[in-house]
Amino acid sequence: MEQNFSYDTLYNFSRSVFEKIGCTEKDAETAAKVLLSADLRGVDSHGVARLSGYVRLWEAKRVNATPIIRIIHETPSTAVVDGDSGLGLVVAPFAMQVAIDKAKNVGTGWVSVQNSNHFGIAGIHAMMALEHDMIGIAMTNASALVAPTFSIEKMLGTNPIAVAIPAGKEQPFVADFATTTAANGKLEILQRKNKPTPAGWVQKKDGSPSNNASELKEGGALLPLGGDKEHGSHKGYMLGSIVDIFSGVLSGANYGPWVPPFPAYIPMPENMPGKGIGHFFGAMRIDAFRTASDFKDNMDQWIHRFKTAKTVQGEEAVIIPGEPEIAMEADRRAHGINLLQPVVDDLNVLSEKFGVIL
Amino acid sequence: MEQNFSYDTLYNFSRSVFEKIGCTEKDAETAAKVLLSADLRGVDSHGVARLSGYVRLWEAKRVNATPIIRIIHETPSTAVVDGDSGLGLVVAPFAMQVAIDKAKNVGTGWVSVQNSNHFGIAGIHAMMALEHDMIGIAMTNASALVAPTFSIEKMLGTNPIAVAIPAGKEQPFVADFATTTAANGKLEILQRKNKPTPAGWVQKKDGSPSNNASELKEGGALLPLGGDKEHGSHKGYMLGSIVDIFSGVLSGANYGPWVPPFPAYIPMPENMPGKGIGHFFGAMRIDAFRTASDFKDNMDQWIHRFKTAKTVQGEEAVIIPGEPEIAMEADRRAHGINLLQPVVDDLNVLSEKFGVIL
Repeated sequence: MEQNFSYDTLYNFSRSVFEKIGCTEKDAETAAKVLLSADLRGVDSHGVARLSGYVRLWEAKRVNATPIIRIIHETPSTAVVDGDSGLGLVVAPFAMQVAIDKAKNVGTGWVSVQNSNHFGIAGIHAMMALEHDMIGIAMTNASALVAPTFSIEKMLGTNPIAVAIPAGKEQPFVADFATTTAANGKLEILQRKNKPTPAGWVQKKDGSPSNNASELKEGGALLPLGGDKEHGSHKGYMLGSIVDIFSGVLSGANYGPWVPPFPAYIPMPENMPGKGIGHFFGAMRIDAFRTASDFKDNMDQWIHRFKTAKTVQGEEAVIIPGEPEIAMEADRRAHGINLLQPVVDDLNVLSEKFGVIL
Repeated sequence: MEQNFSYDTLYNFSRSVFEKIGCTEKDAETAAKVLLSADLRGVDSHGVARLSGYVRLWEAKRVNATPIIRIIHETPSTAVVDGDSGLGLVVAPFAMQVAIDKAKNVGTGWVSVQNSNHFGIAGIHAMMALEHDMIGIAMTNASALVAPTFSIEKMLGTNPIAVAIPAGKEQPFVADFATTTAANGKLEILQRKNKPTPAGWVQKKDGSPSNNASELKEGGALLPLGGDKEHGSHKGYMLGSIVDIFSGVLSGANYGPWVPPFPAYIPMPENMPGKGIGHFFGAMRIDAFRTASDFKDNMDQWIHRFKTAKTVQGEEAVIIPGEPEIAMEADRRAHGINLLQPVVDDLNVLSEKFGVIL
């Protein structure tokens, strides 16, 4: 069963809840906008479905609703930002803005973030660069669910990478993907449908192959993009590691198996080497390389050529990264967002708790 | 049948051949060193086995042995380098040095390169950053062998990414991988052994699955990391595309299906939109983020923790990216490099042609 809500309804509700936990008006707006961007773009696992999770982190005193987010180290093209345990939904846009400002001055800006929390979808932060004719990059580490090649221990998060690249007449190129074969959200869909996973998505507790979408609950692990060694899982493992090191080690946040978990009921790892969760952001001004109009002309040609590549029988077209999300957003802004009943129930609990009307 | 050669023999031979085609003494040294680094690190497909290929590109007037490599646009943290059709083996170290110099000044340096040729292995260029306590990044586009998800047309090269990250007592972390399920070199090994490929490495001309290691010769294509949509090939396609755009579109080089082929006998694509092949390099000073010693302590902990993660039965240890290559290099420096007879034959032809003793 599903219920349909307008974007505005869910946005206003989320903003009010963030205000109720103590966020400033501006932070509550930012957090709601970032959170809801996931629902708009079709990444249902990272949107309003997580609102109650963020609230529980605040209740567990793991999220600071009134953080003093600040730069603790910088050079003309870099900075480290301390998120002061704030919502990643608020810390990330702050840090991405620092990257953009540095790019304005010296061509590029690169910001590593410590002491943050989950930041929603990576793509929305990378996309902040687009209106400035910049390429945007965003990544984050996350609590360990992924077993590196040959490992039975979970050592890495799903560690997503997003890259947003401006085009001219065409829509921008926006890649945003977990460095695992399949993101957690896709597993949840199979769990609800009681269906098996394809090969290479998960492994059992002992490292043997599995098709059980609930394998994580039984001590198993997600697998890096590639699935197994023969199919290139060492590459997915390398990608996840690079995200972890850029986000966690470069900033002084936690990394590897020490990254704090999102569910507030899971205890924090022992002997944590850093502060909170880490992110990494980049902004590159196009005209720090060549004139933006020449670049955009070439991007239009790139996109057009790929879009019109001959397809395998039965497939309509090669998909340009970001294209399905743009279509999804247009549809959901026009026709509302369908939420599953358990998500609606969750929101109703928040509605009662905080006296905010859904 | 194989023949064993010392590193010095192959290095001196390659250097002399590069001098014979007109390279300056310094460029010939650089080109030989970069070329041979592939053999030392065990990437046999990209080493001295390709020397005759580079010579044929020079004979076809597609490689300029005496390029005037120069910066054509720059900001404090960026540059575009024109390789003047030089050997990528020489253009790449020049461009990476520009990135390093910029990082010294403003924290990071980012260089996109046009008008170049194949640059050997990506890893060796990224590794130039290590001795400066910097993170190094290198990538390149290449002629189209890879079909994006849903496509039967070859639109992308194997487009590798390398990231080199310094550690303290531990060896550095060096990831270097093609954004395909399997690199071309692995297919060549199976071809020689007359063995089938695992699923997800190649597809037939019509886009249907294949296990034929020679499928490319029959109009088929390599597949992006992931193999098919169900196993995340859209992520490999996105990665390959990002490499293509950073290397080709950002620099004004060619991109997508227009990237010039390595084999000199293959005609150049029609209506090429840019100049030569493109690369992209980055250097990030560690202490532009935090003190190098703190970072290295954490990297040592990261590496040690991953190395000692519990393994699947039958596997000795989780492998740290770059570890096998360091072991290979030590072995080959001590015991020489084995070359297959067809490679030796190729070198003997060069030896006669240029009067250089092997």
